[in-house]
Amino acid sequence: MELYSDIKKVQQMVSNLHQQGETIGFVPTMGYLHEGHERLIQRARQENDYVILSIFVNPLQFGENEDLDHYPRDEKHDRAIAERNGVDMIFFPTVDTMYPNALSVEMTVTRRADVLCGRSRPGHFEGVVTVLAKLFNICRPTRAYFGMKDAQQIAVVDALIEDYNFPVKLVPVPTVREQDGLAKSSRNVNLTDKEREEAPAIQEALQKGREMVQQGIKNPLTIKNEIRKFLESKTHGKIDYIELLSYPKLQDVHHIEGQVILATAVYYEKARLIDNVVFDADGQLAYG
Amino acid sequence: MELYSDIKKVQQMVSNLHQQGETIGFVPTMGYLHEGHERLIQRARQENDYVILSIFVNPLQFGENEDLDHYPRDEKHDRAIAERNGVDMIFFPTVDTMYPNALSVEMTVTRRADVLCGRSRPGHFEGVVTVLAKLFNICRPTRAYFGMKDAQQIAVVDALIEDYNFPVKLVPVPTVREQDGLAKSSRNVNLTDKEREEAPAIQEALQKGREMVQQGIKNPLTIKNEIRKFLESKTHGKIDYIELLSYPKLQDVHHIEGQVILATAVYYEKARLIDNVVFDADGQLAYG
Repeated sequence: MELYSDIKKVQQMVSNLHQQGETIGFVPTMGYLHEGHERLIQRARQENDYVILSIFVNPLQFGENEDLDHYPRDEKHDRAIAERNGVDMIFFPTVDTMYPNALSVEMTVTRRADVLCGRSRPGHFEGVVTVLAKLFNICRPTRAYFGMKDAQQIAVVDALIEDYNFPVKLVPVPTVREQDGLAKSSRNVNLTDKEREEAPAIQEALQKGREMVQQGIKNPLTIKNEIRKFLESKTHGKIDYIELLSYPKLQDVHHIEGQVILATAVYYEKARLIDNVVFDADGQLAYG
Repeated sequence: MELYSDIKKVQQMVSNLHQQGETIGFVPTMGYLHEGHERLIQRARQENDYVILSIFVNPLQFGENEDLDHYPRDEKHDRAIAERNGVDMIFFPTVDTMYPNALSVEMTVTRRADVLCGRSRPGHFEGVVTVLAKLFNICRPTRAYFGMKDAQQIAVVDALIEDYNFPVKLVPVPTVREQDGLAKSSRNVNLTDKEREEAPAIQEALQKGREMVQQGIKNPLTIKNEIRKFLESKTHGKIDYIELLSYPKLQDVHHIEGQVILATAVYYEKARLIDNVVFDADGQLAYG
């Protein structure tokens, strides 16, 4: 496994790989790798000749109230996980390497950003697309891997790739779950025993919504109301939002016709949990 | 010479070229090719294995008062010029191909845009960087060629490439001139005989400014005043601006230390002419 922190060296390396006709799988992360990241790496490993993992805590995607300085880091642990899963190169640039000067050309996300979790994170997706445009140009991957847990991020990255014709295939990877269906998250350890017991209701509720669509109910409001009732009966968590939007455009729908996302966020005492399902007008799951 | 209008096909073609280790020279244009474009193509031809010329009248870079609909087009003439100068591929997409949907991720040029000609063309450089980011991702060139006549455009493209790490080398090509030094321009035919006789004073004035720097004068104000006096004595044209800025950052300078641009725009009755010189603190020309 090779370690790179210099942009030009990565570009030279990647140029050689292209000349050899090798496919490149790319997993962009902020480090502190967990099982979700591992799943991304494994998928990249299966589908590509060469796998690049980037580790960069991107200051641009942190809001004013978000704690950049205390973002957890564990380089040694990350390296071990990367090595174990067959990563060929880790790219871990410094902030000065990635942002040597103030940007003269800035990116704004004018669609897909102001819904779901994006509503409460102004500027977050600007930071995400800026760093990804850079990383795509540095690593020039054949495929880039993102977890469906953050479905909105995938929708925004999809827009970046489509709008600017980046020659990279976006691969959404299904959310890793516990036996009882709860989406894996580093935040789950902050749940009380009782909360942990109740939390699988989140995924149950979303699947219930999907089943309603399978049964022919196409009115988003009916579905959201039903889910709200179900969640309120099954858990003491406070519902932040329940949204049903077109996917990946993330626009309001009044009647379910094409692909949609059903997503929710629930506050517990010391953790806010999110989850989603993406499916079509027949209730067929879009990803795994 | 091959003709392409489909984005995916160009990307496939270009991917093959990369695999063969071929270098790609890229000349982006809006068509209606003239001698300045020819010079760019010739330089690209000299320095690369494969030369791509794009012809796309980009609606995004036209202002509200700028006449997109009447922008001149002459496909047959353009093809002949391309063929004659050894272009390997012309990429000529439609507007629908380039902008199938409203953009979700938009680019804003926050530096280098609001000076020189950019001052009177709000939104122009946003359109330029947007289409170039797309064209770079479609054609993935080794080198991209731009004329120094539009030095501000080069400065903005330089920012785009640096800020987003596009793996492309920007090649500024010196302005093509008449025997008497007047920068070639399709607008020169709109000059009266008397105006045409006076117009070489523009380049003379700029060279005079450069000579002042060679002689040790480092105060931009002194230089600009001298040039203004010279121009006013030599031509009846109305001076739009005379600016001396750092290059390529295009910031005000109070004392000439690094590389600078000295640029002017002059109104004649039916034509507005622009010209510039870029040089260092010793008055040494930067290009050509």
